[in-house]
Amino acid sequence: MQRGDGRNFNQLRPITITPGFQSFAEGSVLIEQGKTRVICSVSMEDKVPQFLRNSGTGWVTAEYSMLPRSTVTRTQRDSSAGKISGRSQEIQRLIGRSLRSCVDLAALGERSFIIDCDVIQADAGTRTASITGAYIALYLAFKKMVDMGILSKMPFTSQVAAVSVSIFKGNIVLDPCYDEDFQAEVDFNLVMNDRAEFVEIQGTAEGKTFSRDTLDQVLKLGEAGIWQLFDIQNSITRP
Amino acid sequence: MQRGDGRNFNQLRPITITPGFQSFAEGSVLIEQGKTRVICSVSMEDKVPQFLRNSGTGWVTAEYSMLPRSTVTRTQRDSSAGKISGRSQEIQRLIGRSLRSCVDLAALGERSFIIDCDVIQADAGTRTASITGAYIALYLAFKKMVDMGILSKMPFTSQVAAVSVSIFKGNIVLDPCYDEDFQAEVDFNLVMNDRAEFVEIQGTAEGKTFSRDTLDQVLKLGEAGIWQLFDIQNSITRP
Amino acid sequence: MQRGDGRNFNQLRPITITPGFQSFAEGSVLIEQGKTRVICSVSMEDKVPQFLRNSGTGWVTAEYSMLPRSTVTRTQRDSSAGKISGRSQEIQRLIGRSLRSCVDLAALGERSFIIDCDVIQADAGTRTASITGAYIALYLAFKKMVDMGILSKMPFTSQVAAVSVSIFKGNIVLDPCYDEDFQAEVDFNLVMNDRAEFVEIQGTAEGKTFSRDTLDQVLKLGEAGIWQLFDIQNSITRP
Amino acid sequence: MQRGDGRNFNQLRPITITPGFQSFAEGSVLIEQGKTRVICSVSMEDKVPQFLRNSGTGWVTAEYSMLPRSTVTRTQRDSSAGKISGRSQEIQRLIGRSLRSCVDLAALGERSFIIDCDVIQADAGTRTASITGAYIALYLAFKKMVDMGILSKMPFTSQVAAVSVSIFKGNIVLDPCYDEDFQAEVDFNLVMNDRAEFVEIQGTAEGKTFSRDTLDQVLKLGEAGIWQLFDIQNSITRP
Amino acid sequence: MQRGDGRNFNQLRPITITPGFQSFAEGSVLIEQGKTRVICSVSMEDKVPQFLRNSGTGWVTAEYSMLPRSTVTRTQRDSSAGKISGRSQEIQRLIGRSLRSCVDLAALGERSFIIDCDVIQADAGTRTASITGAYIALYLAFKKMVDMGILSKMPFTSQVAAVSVSIFKGNIVLDPCYDEDFQAEVDFNLVMNDRAEFVEIQGTAEGKTFSRDTLDQVLKLGEAGIWQLFDIQNSITRP
Amino acid sequence: MQRGDGRNFNQLRPITITPGFQSFAEGSVLIEQGKTRVICSVSMEDKVPQFLRNSGTGWVTAEYSMLPRSTVTRTQRDSSAGKISGRSQEIQRLIGRSLRSCVDLAALGERSFIIDCDVIQADAGTRTASITGAYIALYLAFKKMVDMGILSKMPFTSQVAAVSVSIFKGNIVLDPCYDEDFQAEVDFNLVMNDRAEFVEIQGTAEGKTFSRDTLDQVLKLGEAGIWQLFDIQNSITRP
Repeated sequence: MQRGDGRNFNQLRPITITPGFQSFAEGSVLIEQGKTRVICSVSMEDKVPQFLRNSGTGWVTAEYSMLPRSTVTRTQRDSSAGKISGRSQEIQRLIGRSLRSCVDLAALGERSFIIDCDVIQADAGTRTASITGAYIALYLAFKKMVDMGILSKMPFTSQVAAVSVSIFKGNIVLDPCYDEDFQAEVDFNLVMNDRAEFVEIQGTAEGKTFSRDTLDQVLKLGEAGIWQLFDIQNSITRP
Repeated sequence: MQRGDGRNFNQLRPITITPGFQSFAEGSVLIEQGKTRVICSVSMEDKVPQFLRNSGTGWVTAEYSMLPRSTVTRTQRDSSAGKISGRSQEIQRLIGRSLRSCVDLAALGERSFIIDCDVIQADAGTRTASITGAYIALYLAFKKMVDMGILSKMPFTSQVAAVSVSIFKGNIVLDPCYDEDFQAEVDFNLVMNDRAEFVEIQGTAEGKTFSRDTLDQVLKLGEAGIWQLFDIQNSITRP
Repeated sequence: MQRGDGRNFNQLRPITITPGFQSFAEGSVLIEQGKTRVICSVSMEDKVPQFLRNSGTGWVTAEYSMLPRSTVTRTQRDSSAGKISGRSQEIQRLIGRSLRSCVDLAALGERSFIIDCDVIQADAGTRTASITGAYIALYLAFKKMVDMGILSKMPFTSQVAAVSVSIFKGNIVLDPCYDEDFQAEVDFNLVMNDRAEFVEIQGTAEGKTFSRDTLDQVLKLGEAGIWQLFDIQNSITRP
Repeated sequence: MQRGDGRNFNQLRPITITPGFQSFAEGSVLIEQGKTRVICSVSMEDKVPQFLRNSGTGWVTAEYSMLPRSTVTRTQRDSSAGKISGRSQEIQRLIGRSLRSCVDLAALGERSFIIDCDVIQADAGTRTASITGAYIALYLAFKKMVDMGILSKMPFTSQVAAVSVSIFKGNIVLDPCYDEDFQAEVDFNLVMNDRAEFVEIQGTAEGKTFSRDTLDQVLKLGEAGIWQLFDIQNSITRP
Repeated sequence: MQRGDGRNFNQLRPITITPGFQSFAEGSVLIEQGKTRVICSVSMEDKVPQFLRNSGTGWVTAEYSMLPRSTVTRTQRDSSAGKISGRSQEIQRLIGRSLRSCVDLAALGERSFIIDCDVIQADAGTRTASITGAYIALYLAFKKMVDMGILSKMPFTSQVAAVSVSIFKGNIVLDPCYDEDFQAEVDFNLVMNDRAEFVEIQGTAEGKTFSRDTLDQVLKLGEAGIWQLFDIQNSITRP
Repeated sequence: MQRGDGRNFNQLRPITITPGFQSFAEGSVLIEQGKTRVICSVSMEDKVPQFLRNSGTGWVTAEYSMLPRSTVTRTQRDSSAGKISGRSQEIQRLIGRSLRSCVDLAALGERSFIIDCDVIQADAGTRTASITGAYIALYLAFKKMVDMGILSKMPFTSQVAAVSVSIFKGNIVLDPCYDEDFQAEVDFNLVMNDRAEFVEIQGTAEGKTFSRDTLDQVLKLGEAGIWQLFDIQNSITRP
């Protein structure tokens, strides 16, 4: 099967990473995956949520938002609506959990690392691109803190990346673009670490369903994509 | 392995269904799964969301909330906070998608069926119990509409139920209770239909991860549980 | 006069009390008064509102809410509206004042007792049933605290209960059900204690008015009803 | 008993009415009752709430608010808090009901009359002064509409006024000022019309209670005060 | 040119100042400028915003609001909308900055002075009248604090007042009233101190623009008006 | 005087314009002015605000927001605060007015053009850079609409740009960067069109003031800067 944009079913979109995109941040990247573009920036704060006070342990959390005209037709700002949309909340909780899975929180001391993922352009896969980019931004922030002597060593316990897989017109395709995603029967988001373990799997069917057999193929295809993403991340973090 | 409450790893908690619990609703059940208790009630409205106007097609949606003292310590009301919590939104979106997967929306006409899931007591598994119970409440509502001649036939395309599986102290356990869930390393929610297809799978690790092999065992265990839930649903809907 | 449901003008609806309905709460009842059903649950917190800090004195407060499908047609959730409705606020302030009238707050220490009244089904009289039920739930909570040695003695200074009286088609009727309440010309809520004193009286006419003579009859009828409610409360608290 | 400000127990505070205080309004007064000062202004709008559309019937409603420094220490604005306080909502609902009790809504056509009651200075009795003043403001607005030919005749069915009575240091006092109200054991608000009927009675005890005998004295004292208020209203409306 | 209300182009509207209008406030005036009427009241609080804690320095801030029927047609309350309107925020920030320009904040100690400007009637120029009035209210509040020994000396570094100038039908007019303001091509707000320095200038054209030459004339005309306002302020503060 | 970044007092920072930055928008640029970077994107909607319905006239409006880590330390999102900050509202109102000053709204038909200005990096002058960039984005959007035949001709009546001028350590400097702006005594924002007319002038002193003579120098310096900005705009719009 040839896809609309010429890719094979198992091919990622071209990925470009620009480190240091927001130069005031402790760590920052612009990740471009096809036409999808997300700014991931990390801020360190010398405080932790209530439930961690006096625990000696730190925290990693995320916020996710889309610029109004990241989308094909303009989307109202959450701030105009006066609240964060359910979709945004769901995504930022996912990003936070995914990144916490690869960090030794105790090694952070009582500090919070806030990852802001702001979507400049949304051509599908913004949540998985956010996770893949957030890992690099967090790496850069940790690196700076180690260089400044604030952290004694890099607190990562593994490397993490994420990818989408869709079933589109009956075919299983890796890293769908908007046209494929919009018409997808089923949509999967896979988050994995470099020990080949799953951090999160979500399989969501709006109106459709999927068999066990399909799931097996999806997981295999997604895993292959994630190993490519690890290489791309490493080209920035271990050049 | 013997579990804290004496169950085997592959055993559901005792389930009791009370149909007609909120007697004003078009359809309603109280579902009790161990100490977890959820009221699921269905309301029909003669209007649809904006994006379906003049489409001739109907809609099924859900709202989820917990009573403040459904939990071991009191939880603040969403209405006091002035907004619906991220967790509640995530869950009600899941319930809505799950139920839409088993309904022929075109057969509803331009009508909405709103499923309210209100948790009276939360001893883990409230979202999956909500889905299992919501199916019955929706069945009862559809039945009433068919009996009244408002719908010409039952608009279900399949039967749907959901179950949780956790990894607790390294063991895979079906339908965890609060003590197991609270300390779980990884938490899975599986939604399936009676054609043995998946509607939704979510595997979430807060701080931990899981292997492909583990996932396979989880899916197998969950599926077995869901077939038992279908039987329990049928004892009410096809007595 | 024979009423629609066969009761005499001076007859309460059948009342059922289920103690321990929400088992995690310090005290809890389900009170059913005809088709009206309210869960009253009490939570203790080791803090008091700002104005009582360092006073050594405790507090009793209440929150009131209706499940969306407690009503004949579905009512939107306060949390969806983003604020507590004026009616809910008015009622929860009334419940709080009524219960504080019968408690020696100084005897609580710097602790708050929060009474959650959640209406499962609303067939009129939900605010008065909430007060009557809240007294029992608070009794059970205080009892547990005394048994645990947290309170040295029961801090009640009196017993409190409440009832509605309506003027319906020119007749004065005790404890109106929905049909009577909906068409009532005037609506009274009476809260009394077991020293035959009034804690609160509210007489509200939407579009109608009432004479002094009518008021006298209302008070007499209501008081008689409240003494019956005291007996019902005592059947649970002093079995 | 001599009161702190020299009044007898059955004496109102001096009352001054300034009609036309907000000159853009359809009707407006500044009512001063002792140090309490409230601006009541009426606005007419050519629309009615949803539930009255196409009914041919009009509506009267009220909004109540306090200026931040109407109080002895500054009170935060409702707009800063982002919502109307429970107390304000309770009061504005009371004002609305009270004024609707004396108006033939059908005679208004599909028009709304909104009464804004803004407290400039709060020395107790702001809700009852609001009702007494609102009647005059509404009279002035109706008069203007009759003069302009928009209404064919004055739509009042009665005259309405309101007064507070408190139990203060064991004495029953009419129209308490702040010092008396603040320390009051029990607080009553009485709304009556000029047919000597009650529109609303509220007896509220924060921590105290009251006997039937006390209530009888309160009603008698309040009624005498209200007849004086009718005369004061008439000095403006029927000079 | 003769103006609609008979004034010359360089003439202020008649101004009346009533000190002590809200008698509970530390300082208060009612300022009437033509039909525009604003209550300015100052409250002192023994705390400062977060960024000034432990700085030994005080703060002056303002809040601005309009009564619903200050305007020709009724304006919805900010509290009903659930937020402060953009216009109100813009104005209250301007008032705060203007008053801070003439106060030695360090001389206040860690205290806040909150200036509430509430518009009773809006016939144009409410923001400039608020500033002119706020100066007097703040003077009165400071005077009281000096008299009570809380402040050691008057903390003013200058005197401040403000005026509007509009271009209306091609003419430059001082202190426009509503009819002139509503149809104005360009609207200027000037805030100056008694050292003939500018504190703030705003020139705003909704749809129109203005030349450098026009600006020069506006500034000259406005400055002349402001010197008259200083005299009026002094008639209250240095009688 | 040599400035910290080597510029002369009358020198703009280097400016880079990237047209088409958000490719889904009707018109879009990334404007970089020194380290300040703003995305300006224009969306067309086939509806107008309430007050323009059935007028045949269109509207131009703006929204302004900063990414959390556009600033040196992280700024909380407006959406987390649940409302748009006063500063953001003030700025977006300014941008809207400025752009409306150069457009023939009647020529738009009943269409709205919404300009989203999102600050990626804030090194001072974000509001003026937003206006300068918004003109180009709006030009590109209008051009596309003309090319598509939706508009019959370009609806601009003039060209508009904006610049800041600050007084910093007693010197008047054009286009201050963050270090200069942060410590500025007085801050001016000038908006002009290519007929050498002012659209808006704002001079704001936080704690300081300025003389008439200073103002004259500021206006002269700012105007010279704006003519350079017109050239830069034209290099994109009339290449």
